[in-house]
Amino acid sequence: MQDKKNQSSRRKFIQQTAITSVGIMLTNSIQLFANQNSNIMKENIQSKGYAGRNETENLSKWSFERRLFGDSDILIDIKFSGICHSDIHTIKGHWGKQQYPQVPGHEIAGIVSAVGKNVTKFKVGDKAGVGCMVNSCMKCESCKNGEEQHCETTGMVGTYGTPEKSSPTGITQGGYSNNIVVTEHFAIKIPENIDLQFAAPLLCAGITTYSPLMKAKFKKGDKIGVVGIGGLGHMAIKLAVSKGAEVHAFTTSPSKANDIKGFGAKEVIVVNSGEDLKPWFGKMDFMISTVPYAYEMSNYISCVKPYGYFTQVGQPINGELMINNTNMIFNRVNFNGSLIGGIPETQEVMNYCAENKIYPQIQIIKADEINEAWKKVVNKEARYRYVIDAATF
Amino acid sequence: MQDKKNQSSRRKFIQQTAITSVGIMLTNSIQLFANQNSNIMKENIQSKGYAGRNETENLSKWSFERRLFGDSDILIDIKFSGICHSDIHTIKGHWGKQQYPQVPGHEIAGIVSAVGKNVTKFKVGDKAGVGCMVNSCMKCESCKNGEEQHCETTGMVGTYGTPEKSSPTGITQGGYSNNIVVTEHFAIKIPENIDLQFAAPLLCAGITTYSPLMKAKFKKGDKIGVVGIGGLGHMAIKLAVSKGAEVHAFTTSPSKANDIKGFGAKEVIVVNSGEDLKPWFGKMDFMISTVPYAYEMSNYISCVKPYGYFTQVGQPINGELMINNTNMIFNRVNFNGSLIGGIPETQEVMNYCAENKIYPQIQIIKADEINEAWKKVVNKEARYRYVIDAATF
Repeated sequence: MQDKKNQSSRRKFIQQTAITSVGIMLTNSIQLFANQNSNIMKENIQSKGYAGRNETENLSKWSFERRLFGDSDILIDIKFSGICHSDIHTIKGHWGKQQYPQVPGHEIAGIVSAVGKNVTKFKVGDKAGVGCMVNSCMKCESCKNGEEQHCETTGMVGTYGTPEKSSPTGITQGGYSNNIVVTEHFAIKIPENIDLQFAAPLLCAGITTYSPLMKAKFKKGDKIGVVGIGGLGHMAIKLAVSKGAEVHAFTTSPSKANDIKGFGAKEVIVVNSGEDLKPWFGKMDFMISTVPYAYEMSNYISCVKPYGYFTQVGQPINGELMINNTNMIFNRVNFNGSLIGGIPETQEVMNYCAENKIYPQIQIIKADEINEAWKKVVNKEARYRYVIDAATF
Repeated sequence: MQDKKNQSSRRKFIQQTAITSVGIMLTNSIQLFANQNSNIMKENIQSKGYAGRNETENLSKWSFERRLFGDSDILIDIKFSGICHSDIHTIKGHWGKQQYPQVPGHEIAGIVSAVGKNVTKFKVGDKAGVGCMVNSCMKCESCKNGEEQHCETTGMVGTYGTPEKSSPTGITQGGYSNNIVVTEHFAIKIPENIDLQFAAPLLCAGITTYSPLMKAKFKKGDKIGVVGIGGLGHMAIKLAVSKGAEVHAFTTSPSKANDIKGFGAKEVIVVNSGEDLKPWFGKMDFMISTVPYAYEMSNYISCVKPYGYFTQVGQPINGELMINNTNMIFNRVNFNGSLIGGIPETQEVMNYCAENKIYPQIQIIKADEINEAWKKVVNKEARYRYVIDAATF
């Protein structure tokens, strides 16, 4: 895979969304029409939300325009939007220089308020969600195989911050806002039997942990270690437990222990230093780490059985993590990373969670509480996912 | 696997070698006897070699005693001893504090000059070799499975520098010397049809690359990348080529290009910067890196196909390597380490190389040239393995 190319191409314009003949049906959430070309959208979509202005300042209110609506697009009236640590890293420039204003947010759940004439997956009034990407080439092998996040040509177009010529602001703008336009392929159907506020975090925290857990192909009763119990980590526990794993949760926050037990973990290991990990060396069948900062990874990796896998999904500043090869030659563990999941798999985790009533533990906040919530996320005080009520934008 | 435990226990005394009733046959290389208990060794074995005195000074001549000889031991009259970069790292304290004087060397080839009464694998006059370990518990699952280097109880006893109560110097002493006593299990039979000077480097450079290559289970025609073309790297090329791989050699030394082609590599990629690696992203089925220093690993790892493996066998100072997880989530490569190989697999690579005439490219030196050779190894001037003529100790 051409990772560097992918990364740089994430920033490239993709022409996919250029619209030559537009035939769409547009409504607002009050005035809903059936799927017919009764309204032709000739103007950019008006949005309002919260945007980062630079690397240091608080997010603040912002009115902006989204791109024109195409035949394969849907417009979503956003109801809830989750706060992910990635939003913070991105806006603060921890993963690279950004263009501002930029509206973060890639855990988006709402109601379809318009569908293009070619749309088949949605109708107006449906529940729909958007996760971490809104486009890709759809022609390469990865895209055809449902791994759009690994698009080999243009790279995936991130939900926010990716250059996009068709966007009036020049970049994609995310979900801390009241609406979003997206190609239907990149929207996820949210089943009727799951509330939108619970569905939102599944679109990043859910899929990012579900995908590597499924790849691990663990058996019932296998020991799975989860490192870092925040938004992603608590979903990893719930998902692994529901699939029959014996989950061991590794946290630096003793105050989370009771919650973690409540999520179904068998063991809670409070880690003050690498020494606390030694009793667990070689014990886990698989481990996933959601820690989004550089940390002393070596002893955690050594908790996996020889020839097992340790997947790092948390992304530290600049991506950099120290790995100790003296440990690696003895522990014989395979280290890898994992990036969200493709659209089919995101739909799968959404359906699975709806069916099995696996809900994130959330705290609903208003738009004007976003900046405070960000501080709490960084300080490990989130319990366990903040979800913004989009009616407050 | 309990890597930390293993590492610390490598330094622990193991009582394995304690001798209660000693019945051995001892000879020198002139006076050879058949396998009978005609001589009982009651004194430590007298040895001479070259030892490190501290982390900074040159190695110098040293006469020392080796442990008493036991019923399951053989005494090897060393003929050749390879110089491995690990010798340098160890003596210079790059991997941890050392006890001095310490005789390095773990690529040892010679002639059996004495066998204990229980010895069945060797007879006096046989060719024999010793690699990177001289003992382990032989009772745990790893030892029973022929992965003695991953002994789960005492840890493997390294050929030099591991505390050993039975050794008069308190630690094991290696192969830069004229003889060595070793439990027969940890000695490798060297076939008649391979010269000792070629056999010696197989005992570390050979097995350390052979083991992960075999684990990679590559198919004929698969593309294998080898990073760092020194003692280990050139053996990796020869071994992979002989097993049918299409080998791509990555080197920072343009002057090695012709040699590398001679080893059978299909492509030589001279790497001046990470940019030079981009055309190779996602192209290799498997990669092995022998680089023994911290280096910009990320772009090398990205040369492997998604879901492939990258094995780091070179051990940098303190083992520390930076890994970029932003790359890892996109490239989807599994990173791991590999530590030499077990005794059965070391015998396997020895037999394989003898049978297929796969010989390291060596330069034979005298004992008084060791220090100069070490400098050349560090300066990437070795072509490609220095082998000490043990007659010069």
